[in-house]
Amino acid sequence: MLILAFDTSTAHGSLALVAEEEPLAEWQLGSPVPYLQRLLPDLDRLLQATGLSLAAIDLIVVSAGPGNFTGLRLGLATAKGLALVLGCPVVAVNTLDALAANFPWASLPVCPVLDAKKQELYAAFYQVQAEPVRQADYLLLAPEALVAEVKAPTLFTGPALARYGRFLTDRLAGLAVLAPPECRQIRASVLARLGRQEWAAGRIPDLEGLSPFYLRGAPVEPPSS
Amino acid sequence: MLILAFDTSTAHGSLALVAEEEPLAEWQLGSPVPYLQRLLPDLDRLLQATGLSLAAIDLIVVSAGPGNFTGLRLGLATAKGLALVLGCPVVAVNTLDALAANFPWASLPVCPVLDAKKQELYAAFYQVQAEPVRQADYLLLAPEALVAEVKAPTLFTGPALARYGRFLTDRLAGLAVLAPPECRQIRASVLARLGRQEWAAGRIPDLEGLSPFYLRGAPVEPPSS
Repeated sequence: MLILAFDTSTAHGSLALVAEEEPLAEWQLGSPVPYLQRLLPDLDRLLQATGLSLAAIDLIVVSAGPGNFTGLRLGLATAKGLALVLGCPVVAVNTLDALAANFPWASLPVCPVLDAKKQELYAAFYQVQAEPVRQADYLLLAPEALVAEVKAPTLFTGPALARYGRFLTDRLAGLAVLAPPECRQIRASVLARLGRQEWAAGRIPDLEGLSPFYLRGAPVEPPSS
Repeated sequence: MLILAFDTSTAHGSLALVAEEEPLAEWQLGSPVPYLQRLLPDLDRLLQATGLSLAAIDLIVVSAGPGNFTGLRLGLATAKGLALVLGCPVVAVNTLDALAANFPWASLPVCPVLDAKKQELYAAFYQVQAEPVRQADYLLLAPEALVAEVKAPTLFTGPALARYGRFLTDRLAGLAVLAPPECRQIRASVLARLGRQEWAAGRIPDLEGLSPFYLRGAPVEPPSS
């Protein structure tokens, strides 16, 4: 089974081809250039490097959000377009779950944070063994409110640490441990692992029903007709 | 500070550009094709994707071994060649250390294993918090001897699990936990983090003195003259 996975939910892009559980090739790019402009050319490079064809793909896994509104919509649209052509299913994985899954067998609770703009964060708390197990609801909250949630040493991760890492360590002192910078991004190979489990459990959404996971409404509401 | 890091110690290649601590781009390839054939073309792609030039590189980090003999020698030779042209230092990071560093804040001891051929393994045991701390010597031993070393639940990782993972879980039952497959490879961005720390601590070897870390002699001795 060949899995194509990609993430377009943050400023960092990631793209991977995974055969069953074995990663064949992965590309990560942290860039001010929107990753979407590179997605299809990079997919072509991955196929070339692995000697595989697009037609061999059996499952597409994308990040569902929360995250960048435009990135998520275009990422899902690209996944749906490819899936229609290839006749394969698409599974979308929550962005926070995928960030937590970078820390298998972590000794601390893991809290990924994403910048939700408007001085708010997306966050969730996990215990991670082989897989991340979320401990409570997905959160959309002010940084101060996140600080108030933390009662024990916690491993923070996610791209929002570039902006909020120092705030968290200042406010939480010894309770805030920051993940190494290279572990704070979504890895498409990790998305592939989580998506494959969804697929194996039969949790495969209809293509039409596949939509981004938002914790608040879209930033621009369509005009009411 | 711009760091170029790459790994040629196993069948999986990895290449990354990291600015200070921020990963800019990373490429991973698990391939039957020797990664070395792709190293320089892939470096060119990374530079293109990030809009950076070779001349901007301030530090080169490579894996020192243990690992594939030819891969290590050619990887180090490539690093030295680039460093001579660029006038920048090279730091080599132990391959087992880099594999353990994939599991920051692990709740279990971490044991990376590499296939040393001749029915032997390279291995070491670590406690990992922000960084891996090795608990005893680097080991070169038979799989049975490794099993005899394990007294407590241990997180095994490394590319040799593809071959020895089932052996370890069969022989160690509940004491052997296997890392998810996408976490078993060296990530060049992790090499970059460990190498930057060596550099910051002033542990920068002379280019001439830089040689692969072997736990046993080279497979072919040069003829005595």
